[in-house]
Amino acid sequence: MKVYLVGAGPGDPGLITVKGRKILERADAIFYDNLASVRLLDLAPAPAERIYVGKKRSAHEFSQEEISAMLIDRARRGGTIVRLKGGDPFIFGRGGEEIEALAAAGIPFEIVPGVTTPLGIAAYTGVPLTHRDHTSAVTFVTGHDVAAIDWSKVGASETIVLFMGLVNFPAIARELIAQGRPASTPAMAVRWATRPDQQTIVGTLGDLPGRVAALKPPATIVIGEVVALRDKFNWYEKLPLFGKRIVVTRDRQQAADLAEPLEALGAEALLLPVLEIREAADHARLDHAIANLDSYDWLIFTSVNGVRYFINHLDRSQRDLRALKARI
Amino acid sequence: MKVYLVGAGPGDPGLITVKGRKILERADAIFYDNLASVRLLDLAPAPAERIYVGKKRSAHEFSQEEISAMLIDRARRGGTIVRLKGGDPFIFGRGGEEIEALAAAGIPFEIVPGVTTPLGIAAYTGVPLTHRDHTSAVTFVTGHDVAAIDWSKVGASETIVLFMGLVNFPAIARELIAQGRPASTPAMAVRWATRPDQQTIVGTLGDLPGRVAALKPPATIVIGEVVALRDKFNWYEKLPLFGKRIVVTRDRQQAADLAEPLEALGAEALLLPVLEIREAADHARLDHAIANLDSYDWLIFTSVNGVRYFINHLDRSQRDLRALKARI
Repeated sequence: MKVYLVGAGPGDPGLITVKGRKILERADAIFYDNLASVRLLDLAPAPAERIYVGKKRSAHEFSQEEISAMLIDRARRGGTIVRLKGGDPFIFGRGGEEIEALAAAGIPFEIVPGVTTPLGIAAYTGVPLTHRDHTSAVTFVTGHDVAAIDWSKVGASETIVLFMGLVNFPAIARELIAQGRPASTPAMAVRWATRPDQQTIVGTLGDLPGRVAALKPPATIVIGEVVALRDKFNWYEKLPLFGKRIVVTRDRQQAADLAEPLEALGAEALLLPVLEIREAADHARLDHAIANLDSYDWLIFTSVNGVRYFINHLDRSQRDLRALKARI
Repeated sequence: MKVYLVGAGPGDPGLITVKGRKILERADAIFYDNLASVRLLDLAPAPAERIYVGKKRSAHEFSQEEISAMLIDRARRGGTIVRLKGGDPFIFGRGGEEIEALAAAGIPFEIVPGVTTPLGIAAYTGVPLTHRDHTSAVTFVTGHDVAAIDWSKVGASETIVLFMGLVNFPAIARELIAQGRPASTPAMAVRWATRPDQQTIVGTLGDLPGRVAALKPPATIVIGEVVALRDKFNWYEKLPLFGKRIVVTRDRQQAADLAEPLEALGAEALLLPVLEIREAADHARLDHAIANLDSYDWLIFTSVNGVRYFINHLDRSQRDLRALKARI
């Protein structure tokens, strides 16, 4: 019995850690909230419980206390419990509060860090958060409560990353400018970073609040001279299929094989399996044929799927290839 | 032809991203420096070039210009080139400088973010970098050049993470205290974070410089009230095998299967394969036996390795299990 607090990364499901993925693959229960990639949930075994504990923007669906209580309750029933959190659990992820409750209840836990959203933004927009010529410090700060922060101090950090700061951005930008940061400082807002629908709006501290007025949360804002490097370094949004949405209708298992190279080219692959390959409900005729294999001269297979189900049934009849006298 | 700038994560080889790992697995050449985990290099195919471009602490072995020139030169010969960097490439990784050179040379590149060292430290020492009750901002700053930083501004950040700050830590602590940060502020230095030989020294802004006087670089320093949470949250150093060094002498492939559960319990697994399981150099007798399978009544296997090599040779003789008439 153990609870694993796992960072899911910024969005691209390939940005979870190898360790986090392995834990997901043997999970008995997963508690998740508004993940940027629900596809990570598919990594868990089919029978694993998937429990949504997300919060809506306006109304909290579950309080932190309720989530902690559910985690503890489920952990006491045993197994591998994953608490999957977007980004990294210890950067504005409220991981601390959840671990506190687990520790108090005597539940064993481990923490698996994740790629926090600013690192995903940096890589996928081409904006190094630090750069020898421009900045030797970067500050991550929450824009959730403007009054709680002394912006005269934060404003000095050469690169500022604002979490949950879209709604309050006009006020924060005014504060930073009033504290001496030039209105011409490059700035950008990024929504759905590292995903094929990544949206980047670039401007300055002075004009970005106006430019993002129509943008919906969640978005992260990066402020600093490094934003100007983006023109040279922006590889992701220039991938040949970036912005293209491609529906993959193959069987679920085969679809993943096709989705991966499409996504490597920047496309958004929507898995919409319109066909499912599975065993015939009635396999009496197949089993009968297997029981009487000796009476056949030829076995003709029309697809790799046919081969797979035939071998499965041969196995179940406690036999193997040696039972095949017919030509194939 | 493409260069991938890949973040290797903080040390535990399981903390590389799934995407980074996949790219390593098909690399033709890897440029690496002083990685916290050289075991990541084993993920690349055996014939891949592994090129060390690290810098010694005192003398630079390669200048940044030389590294960039080598990367460009190798990239022009084609293939999948990986530039593997500890932590994240865009947080004090000088990834920006390397990408700049690649972009100028017209070499296509991609950037795969990584778990930056502070996130690894947070998770494996049990110190959340942000916590609602304690801090709403965290600053990453390099301690390499004390004079380059305005510490009066950095000092206000509730959590400060100092990269490369061990040597200058006495001067930096004095600066922070002079700027109003209490000498009683909790602080810790962490060396080899997320590795089984992780070393953590805890103190306060006032006394930590004295405590770490004997510590050798590289180490990262975390300053802030959140460090006090460590007593409750420190799961990693309490794992049953933490601090134990276990030599695994099995064959390389089988050793990895044993190393993983040992490391999950906190041990340091040293892979020292004293035996290697491989095919007999002379397999004439095996092939002869396979050619005359019909003359045997029984086949007796003594290990899974025997089965594997027998099936390999059966395959090569263009036959399969159906050729086996003998009992097994």
